[in-house]
Amino acid sequence: MPQHHWILSFVCDDMPGIVNAISGAIVDCGGNITESQQFASSNGRFFMRLQVEADAPRADFEARLTQVGERHQMEWQLDDVGRPLRTLVLGSTAKHCVSDLLFRQREGQLPIDVPLVLSNHESLSRIADFYDVPFEHRPVMTAEEKQAMEARILELVDQHDIELVVLARYMQILSEDLCRALEGRAINIHHSFLPGFKGANPYRQAHDRGVKLIGATAHFVTPDLDEGPIIEQNVTRVDHSHSPAQLQHIGQDVESQTLTRAVRWFAEHRVLLDGDRTVIFR
Amino acid sequence: MPQHHWILSFVCDDMPGIVNAISGAIVDCGGNITESQQFASSNGRFFMRLQVEADAPRADFEARLTQVGERHQMEWQLDDVGRPLRTLVLGSTAKHCVSDLLFRQREGQLPIDVPLVLSNHESLSRIADFYDVPFEHRPVMTAEEKQAMEARILELVDQHDIELVVLARYMQILSEDLCRALEGRAINIHHSFLPGFKGANPYRQAHDRGVKLIGATAHFVTPDLDEGPIIEQNVTRVDHSHSPAQLQHIGQDVESQTLTRAVRWFAEHRVLLDGDRTVIFR
Amino acid sequence: MPQHHWILSFVCDDMPGIVNAISGAIVDCGGNITESQQFASSNGRFFMRLQVEADAPRADFEARLTQVGERHQMEWQLDDVGRPLRTLVLGSTAKHCVSDLLFRQREGQLPIDVPLVLSNHESLSRIADFYDVPFEHRPVMTAEEKQAMEARILELVDQHDIELVVLARYMQILSEDLCRALEGRAINIHHSFLPGFKGANPYRQAHDRGVKLIGATAHFVTPDLDEGPIIEQNVTRVDHSHSPAQLQHIGQDVESQTLTRAVRWFAEHRVLLDGDRTVIFR
Amino acid sequence: MPQHHWILSFVCDDMPGIVNAISGAIVDCGGNITESQQFASSNGRFFMRLQVEADAPRADFEARLTQVGERHQMEWQLDDVGRPLRTLVLGSTAKHCVSDLLFRQREGQLPIDVPLVLSNHESLSRIADFYDVPFEHRPVMTAEEKQAMEARILELVDQHDIELVVLARYMQILSEDLCRALEGRAINIHHSFLPGFKGANPYRQAHDRGVKLIGATAHFVTPDLDEGPIIEQNVTRVDHSHSPAQLQHIGQDVESQTLTRAVRWFAEHRVLLDGDRTVIFR
Repeated sequence: MPQHHWILSFVCDDMPGIVNAISGAIVDCGGNITESQQFASSNGRFFMRLQVEADAPRADFEARLTQVGERHQMEWQLDDVGRPLRTLVLGSTAKHCVSDLLFRQREGQLPIDVPLVLSNHESLSRIADFYDVPFEHRPVMTAEEKQAMEARILELVDQHDIELVVLARYMQILSEDLCRALEGRAINIHHSFLPGFKGANPYRQAHDRGVKLIGATAHFVTPDLDEGPIIEQNVTRVDHSHSPAQLQHIGQDVESQTLTRAVRWFAEHRVLLDGDRTVIFR
Repeated sequence: MPQHHWILSFVCDDMPGIVNAISGAIVDCGGNITESQQFASSNGRFFMRLQVEADAPRADFEARLTQVGERHQMEWQLDDVGRPLRTLVLGSTAKHCVSDLLFRQREGQLPIDVPLVLSNHESLSRIADFYDVPFEHRPVMTAEEKQAMEARILELVDQHDIELVVLARYMQILSEDLCRALEGRAINIHHSFLPGFKGANPYRQAHDRGVKLIGATAHFVTPDLDEGPIIEQNVTRVDHSHSPAQLQHIGQDVESQTLTRAVRWFAEHRVLLDGDRTVIFR
Repeated sequence: MPQHHWILSFVCDDMPGIVNAISGAIVDCGGNITESQQFASSNGRFFMRLQVEADAPRADFEARLTQVGERHQMEWQLDDVGRPLRTLVLGSTAKHCVSDLLFRQREGQLPIDVPLVLSNHESLSRIADFYDVPFEHRPVMTAEEKQAMEARILELVDQHDIELVVLARYMQILSEDLCRALEGRAINIHHSFLPGFKGANPYRQAHDRGVKLIGATAHFVTPDLDEGPIIEQNVTRVDHSHSPAQLQHIGQDVESQTLTRAVRWFAEHRVLLDGDRTVIFR
Repeated sequence: MPQHHWILSFVCDDMPGIVNAISGAIVDCGGNITESQQFASSNGRFFMRLQVEADAPRADFEARLTQVGERHQMEWQLDDVGRPLRTLVLGSTAKHCVSDLLFRQREGQLPIDVPLVLSNHESLSRIADFYDVPFEHRPVMTAEEKQAMEARILELVDQHDIELVVLARYMQILSEDLCRALEGRAINIHHSFLPGFKGANPYRQAHDRGVKLIGATAHFVTPDLDEGPIIEQNVTRVDHSHSPAQLQHIGQDVESQTLTRAVRWFAEHRVLLDGDRTVIFR
């Protein structure tokens, strides 16, 4: 067994020779590529993710990557395969997404490490207890409370060295400042319909229009509400016999599955940003 | 083998005793129920579709249905299982939907009988020839031509006793009058995205937003453009590597599959209208 | 809101007039049919499942059903919608199926009531504790122990008035006597491949043959090992890159999903036996 | 637009430096990698498929590949993206697979070029005519006729420089000699069930066992009947209401879809052999 199993991901301008340069760096450290995916975007950017086994010290590999990276002006990232990502979970009243994340963390099915669930409602405390995850409740009824909550989020991100913030049906609009502070490391989930519905009670509207599919979208948080780069989408089939309440239950299942997949891919460094789009190396 | 195999479908106000009354009529004619589906809508309407085998003359069964139907104020319809529906196909330049419909008609996989393909472009003539279906071309560039085309549609509907008009990527907005004249017997197909996109070149927009699913919706034609009762929806998975042109090809596959399913269900009397919604007895 | 919401399911010989007779009984009690499915088997048997809302006392409805049932020699069953089924779970070392059942029971997603998990290994005790379900361990290494375990199973079935026994990867072959004693109320899960593999380590064999799908089958327990009437089957896509261990993990997910679906349908009286086949009213 | 768009695929022993060597050859010819997939098998073999755009003459690139290939003892193959594969189709009485292949060839959806359909029954002649593909019929009732047919197959392979032989429900067992002669370039399709069924009329057996899934497997032809390396598998859901004849129709749809996918992947050089397994670079 080799000493290390790394994930290397990087982005740079597309040009001939990149793969050759990176594979050269890997050869120099006696590394072996166990997984490799690449994508050249139509906007001229090149994305790559590799898994590399090697016995060389990490510092040696990083030194070689720094050389190659400077030459090609790469943004690169090196991590250990399987390392749990420090993840802050924000919740509200809905239990399904938080429950699925904590269940899978506990079962060892999801490489995240959640130091805290932070919520604007008490209702999630029992689930957090059940999974032995600390829980903190802060009401967000007033503008002051909202400001305090956002300050607390940033404090926790700092304190726990948080790499990912998951809005697990958090239901609060983040301020533009907070969106920017968490750019590229906060994931939100929302329901999605064909056609889309605006306004309150979308499941009632979906019922009244007789939709045959309901779905969910996981995306990065940006100041444009529900318009950040899409990470994952899923739908499930429904029919005329489903009540609005049943549609909602079915929709929640899709939401939690979709959010969990997005979190897994992010935690495994399979999600790279390409402007308003994502490159997903599944 | 029994002499007849009928499809009976009906709608009426929901109340105790309907199933009992209908099944009584069937018993009286020595009929046997081979398939049965029902649905009670939350708005108080009751929908049912049955397949019935019987040796009794059709007139006898219709007489009994008339009695029951009057008592319960049913709108009912009786047809033979497998009878091809007289179907007018409207097309434009895109080939995929027309091609799939005619291919399946020819293979005996779709119970429709298409006496004519009517199109505002010449491009579909070769496909129609290939499948031995008459083809008629009428340009629709001016307001007069549009009016003439709509008159021609109604003329053909009348002349061929058309039961279903399929807008197979017809790409023309029907006038409100024509929509009303064809209400409940014209089906349209359009692409669908999560989130929805307005305006030109939706596949380009879908690409730029990095959507992970693209889909299609088949719906009844109403004066509200693309807002008629939904019959069927499907999506397929795409990823960052698909170009706008590839998205379009994939989307076209979903469109033709979705339209063909909607046409099949309609031709088999599996589609019942419930206000703005459909009840689909698959 | 009506006083009662019942599930009525029955089987009898197919003949004209059954639906009429049953719907007559429902009308007599002022009941309303909210869901209805039926099937006439090619072997001449007729199966039906209805959900009925009514205000009449249950005894009245049962009296009417008894009349109709005697006339048509029906085997019928009446239950309340949503009543949890008393379910005994048998496990061994594998956690995935037991974990999913108990998780969904606890979340209120599965209408079962598990009084006990009985296992031939200690390994499941932590999961049972976690979900506050009593756990009992009995080694099954010798013929005597096996006999004692089977006696214990029957004792528990009797003591807790068990309606369903779930073999959640129990990995022990039940004696012919026990199979007969539990006929029609014991469900097993096993992995399934295309092509099928005999013998030890099927995931290794599946890997070596490069299968593209792996699946699971939930079926009734019969003396013919793994050959009882099939309730549900699912597959998932795999590829050349999956190791035997990964195939096993993926297979376990399919197993637990498939078993949970079969248990749900059984608990909702959607599973009816038709000789060696099942009729599933989903 | 670059002058060339190539598909390069190769297999060699796994060792550090392969990717670096190949990407070096590409850089030397000014090529750019537009698609790349790789796999290191647990048996020590390394598989890779790349798409490369370049302006350099093909001979130059081949010269560089020959150097690298010799150093690493690669078996490599270079082709133009989109070049239709010369494909011989063998059929019998069933129309569905042949029809789908010819339809998609004609629609430009499948990169194959079929010079002839060869069949042991006349029934396919109308389909071949319809798609303007030459048709040849040879009865295979006697041992002599079988031998003559196999000789004819080899003659046609030779005459048309055939790269792929597709057994589109050919229903004849090929001799061991012919299997060897076509090794790695003949694809067969057969139905697949969970559990598997031996003997005649498998759809009847599947019906009697009440299977919930029916499927199909496309695989390379080997002397071991139906046991060659698997290329693609699919299943579709069925239920108790399907008759054996309906199961067969549904099964045929799965068969033709599965065969067409396997043929597409082979024609795009996405199918590499790894002993008894396949590596599929989708």
